[in-house]
Amino acid sequence: MGHRCKLAIQVDLILTCQRVPEVDEKDLNLTIELAGGEQKVYTIQDLQTKFNQHTITATLQCSGNRRSDMSANSRKAQGLPWGNGAISNSSWTGVRLVDVLADAGFPTDASITSSPTDSSAAKHVHLVGAEAYAISIPINKALDPWGDVLLVHKQNGQALSRDHGYPLRVIVPGYVAARSVKWLTKIVLSNEESQSIWHQKDYKCFGPNETSASIDWNKAPSIMEFPVQSAITKVIETSARSIDGTVQDSTMTIAGYAHSGGGRRIVRVDVSTDDGKTWKQAELLHQDESLGHRAWSWTQWRLVVPNNVVGRAYIVKAVDEANNTQPESYDAYYNFRGNLTNSWHRVEVDV
Amino acid sequence: MGHRCKLAIQVDLILTCQRVPEVDEKDLNLTIELAGGEQKVYTIQDLQTKFNQHTITATLQCSGNRRSDMSANSRKAQGLPWGNGAISNSSWTGVRLVDVLADAGFPTDASITSSPTDSSAAKHVHLVGAEAYAISIPINKALDPWGDVLLVHKQNGQALSRDHGYPLRVIVPGYVAARSVKWLTKIVLSNEESQSIWHQKDYKCFGPNETSASIDWNKAPSIMEFPVQSAITKVIETSARSIDGTVQDSTMTIAGYAHSGGGRRIVRVDVSTDDGKTWKQAELLHQDESLGHRAWSWTQWRLVVPNNVVGRAYIVKAVDEANNTQPESYDAYYNFRGNLTNSWHRVEVDV
Repeated sequence: MGHRCKLAIQVDLILTCQRVPEVDEKDLNLTIELAGGEQKVYTIQDLQTKFNQHTITATLQCSGNRRSDMSANSRKAQGLPWGNGAISNSSWTGVRLVDVLADAGFPTDASITSSPTDSSAAKHVHLVGAEAYAISIPINKALDPWGDVLLVHKQNGQALSRDHGYPLRVIVPGYVAARSVKWLTKIVLSNEESQSIWHQKDYKCFGPNETSASIDWNKAPSIMEFPVQSAITKVIETSARSIDGTVQDSTMTIAGYAHSGGGRRIVRVDVSTDDGKTWKQAELLHQDESLGHRAWSWTQWRLVVPNNVVGRAYIVKAVDEANNTQPESYDAYYNFRGNLTNSWHRVEVDV
Repeated sequence: MGHRCKLAIQVDLILTCQRVPEVDEKDLNLTIELAGGEQKVYTIQDLQTKFNQHTITATLQCSGNRRSDMSANSRKAQGLPWGNGAISNSSWTGVRLVDVLADAGFPTDASITSSPTDSSAAKHVHLVGAEAYAISIPINKALDPWGDVLLVHKQNGQALSRDHGYPLRVIVPGYVAARSVKWLTKIVLSNEESQSIWHQKDYKCFGPNETSASIDWNKAPSIMEFPVQSAITKVIETSARSIDGTVQDSTMTIAGYAHSGGGRRIVRVDVSTDDGKTWKQAELLHQDESLGHRAWSWTQWRLVVPNNVVGRAYIVKAVDEANNTQPESYDAYYNFRGNLTNSWHRVEVDV
């Protein structure tokens, strides 16, 4: 299977941590296998010419983002010690999975109007990459007319790079990045979810008391949507001086990102400059105003405060449109894999 | 307008706190007003004979549920001091709002397949009750094929009681109960959300630092979905005695409910019997297994532990399928109306 990567330099390279496959777009045959076993094959050219093209801006967040905060504030968690940078935001261009499934003969309309559980057509969509990685997503996300699951060939208007899944990858917006399979070669409709190790024994959360030795992996669902999250990524001191060099005015700009799963919009970001005693609301920049849980892109925020406090700890916590918030503490939210760490992000500023 | 009620004895009676209207079902004319101004009128008989009937089990939770916990653990919040009982679970029978809108001439299919924000048809659905109460919900919830917004005439298989909205009410499952308008008489499609005082200046959340004197009501969105919630409703001591009266075995059963907004399923309930130091997972009873964020019903849970600890505080916190959790503390989550209180629920047990 080739070499394993030693160092993950991209957030989503870590999703498989296997070799980066070499697939030429001329050679790609995307196979769709329906629940009855029938198959249909699409080339990249088919996808680019037969279907409407769509572009969305979506954030991908690794389930291990901020794992190092969990390890530092509670017990050590298993996995790569990501800081708050295992997250990124891009525009993605491609075709809707639901359109391709309909073209392949899957009864998307009937499944939409009836209950997904009533449908015998399929309950899960398996997404398989060229390097062996495979997971599944629930059929309702794939068919949701506002779910925006895309098969993409462009990132930020350019062909995908090999590291990002060239020639074809999936973007499942609002879900943890592990569902956005790269180097996509096969899609399978099934009544069973994926039995791969990545789906069954990796991206799951357990209770603070549960350990890798004690758990029954089947008890927890695979992570799909992630909880509300925010982090401080910049603290900038700005001083205005008069010609003689005396400081006239000095401010601190605190800035970062906030994001929530399932396309839920960020509605408020609270920042504390006194270690959680009092709070102020940050300014939200470039808010996504679309209705219907389609805020796939992170929200950047900033707060400017007077620079008159010495020895500070700054904290951020966000609220999403379902009014979910981030917890303060770590121990009671510990999970041994350090997945989905979203307790308050706190930075200490030395002056 | 008649008398105002003095004492709210039902969770959703408080939604309007005005007189309970007397409307006979023979006299009801439900008016649907489209964005262009065209109107269509339906009688109860029309609704019962022209459309498919649907039954869902859904929990209604007042946005003020557990407000008294917020007041007791932080500062006093404005509003009725609900404990953890401002929530209830029923089966509801009626017709889908989306079916009625389609029959009235609203282009539901076009709006589903295009972006809700692209659609000029309408962005909000106003729901107006006979006693003056009015709010709106976003069009995407109304049109969502899995959103299950119903116009109901039956609760638990019986005709609605007057207190519960006879002859016709709305059930907006997954949303705070204030959106499930009772004594429904009018539905208006509009590009603007409701300007009623209940929609604009009541069911909203602000930051812990914000007060009724300082806030700009327009800055916060109206509450729709609520965050993950749980509470302990029962602690039962069970002792087995031998014939001579000596205790052979003694256990404590801790039980309650857990629920989350937007139909997000409860995936785990953590219970602590040592005031938050350690946790155990409760047994989840009667889990709703439907795919696609349609877990409209609460999840009841229980944990049986040995009865060998004196002077206990029991705590519960739940996790939903988006992996959102309940915060531990209160002060940093305070909002002056005490809405959507969902910090850890803690009960002290005297022995």
